[in-house]
Amino acid sequence: MSEGAVAVVTAGLLVIGDEILSGRTKDKNIGYIAEYLTNIGIDLKEVRVVADDEAAIVEALNALRARCTYVFTTGGIGPTHDDITADSVAKAFGVSIDYDPRAVALLKARFQGAELNEARMRMTRIPAGADLVTNKISVAPGFRIGNVFVMAGVPAIMQAMLDEIAPTLQTGVKMLSETVRADAREGDVGTELAAIAKTHPEVSIGSYPFFDAEQGPNTNIVVRSRDAGKLAAAKQAVEQMLVKVRSALAAGRG
Amino acid sequence: MSEGAVAVVTAGLLVIGDEILSGRTKDKNIGYIAEYLTNIGIDLKEVRVVADDEAAIVEALNALRARCTYVFTTGGIGPTHDDITADSVAKAFGVSIDYDPRAVALLKARFQGAELNEARMRMTRIPAGADLVTNKISVAPGFRIGNVFVMAGVPAIMQAMLDEIAPTLQTGVKMLSETVRADAREGDVGTELAAIAKTHPEVSIGSYPFFDAEQGPNTNIVVRSRDAGKLAAAKQAVEQMLVKVRSALAAGRG
Repeated sequence: MSEGAVAVVTAGLLVIGDEILSGRTKDKNIGYIAEYLTNIGIDLKEVRVVADDEAAIVEALNALRARCTYVFTTGGIGPTHDDITADSVAKAFGVSIDYDPRAVALLKARFQGAELNEARMRMTRIPAGADLVTNKISVAPGFRIGNVFVMAGVPAIMQAMLDEIAPTLQTGVKMLSETVRADAREGDVGTELAAIAKTHPEVSIGSYPFFDAEQGPNTNIVVRSRDAGKLAAAKQAVEQMLVKVRSALAAGRG
Repeated sequence: MSEGAVAVVTAGLLVIGDEILSGRTKDKNIGYIAEYLTNIGIDLKEVRVVADDEAAIVEALNALRARCTYVFTTGGIGPTHDDITADSVAKAFGVSIDYDPRAVALLKARFQGAELNEARMRMTRIPAGADLVTNKISVAPGFRIGNVFVMAGVPAIMQAMLDEIAPTLQTGVKMLSETVRADAREGDVGTELAAIAKTHPEVSIGSYPFFDAEQGPNTNIVVRSRDAGKLAAAKQAVEQMLVKVRSALAAGRG
């Protein structure tokens, strides 16, 4: 661990939007953000999806921000009446919200005269004390308040915002990961895998069944640790176990 | 509303798995379940994604089952040590858990002798008082306890289980939905849309920006209601508003 590095930095994600819960829009942000955070050494601990409903947003946000280093939200910061994220975040923090001069300036540079109507001005409502999060695609900003980052729901805009945010984040020691293809069914390796997990407590071992069109049921074993040495040792134990299991299976079939 | 029908039936969804939070596996169940439930008249109110961690599963499950008519879980019911969903659900309900004779019989019919090892037997651990949820793809069952349905994480198996579960569910009056393409940017219609939302309180109006490769920024307006008449009235109001807005925009550009 490099000096000054923090071992574990955690995150929560709050996805806001009726359209995700109705199934009309299929979320593409959870998987993207999960992978992004893992890659920069931040552990995503929990995701919640809630409706465009103030009470639901406030409750979920307050729960997540109390228990995670950072919280990211997606959705609900557009120009229409159902975009209530900024107001809900202000309520969760107990601060006021108003048209933010910095956000107004950004929109004025893009929209002139009648175009900068009441609806678009809604996108300049920012809770008191927040910092703006700009992005290269849209002039409407997200914002940061406390440990919470409020981002757009449109994937391309959210991704651009995350790129702006990432360099400002404290990051932890990156979780390292190795995948071993078992060439066996999950039920054939489960008992042995549990024994390895027990003798390698600082390594997390996951088992994920998949179907190979040619070979049939198969399993990916994923070994994860922040310590490269411990990861290598556990991976070796898994590989040695697999050799034994496969030869026993072959003998059984013979 | 047909006699005896309940107006609103709600659901919560709990997705369980480290692999979703690390981004290694991209969830495909949330969108599928959301759409499925909407189509049978059940409102999905909240989704949570948590790790393979007993305390996290127990807390999320107890929160969701207290506030929703039904809760569905996905993931963590396989044969390996990281599959801890059944034990966690038993803990959440405060009941015991053991090898279930009905589940054992299902697995014995499929796996003989040494194949029915400790790992596979793990899949027969079912909380006391639960009913099994079988499926056409895998012999390992899910289960129902109280208002909670525990399903597999593999999408094809989860989908087969949901098909078994659906006919047993109480369903509400189906939410009807109409989508109107605005041919205008979200910020051009936001003010007018808010006014329509105010005068149609029993209709939910959502606004979703999208990018049309030929025409540029555009918006889908989604009008939703359980009442067909109110839905039609709100849709008509939206369409009339759009005619006015588009002609004003055309005049402004002229």
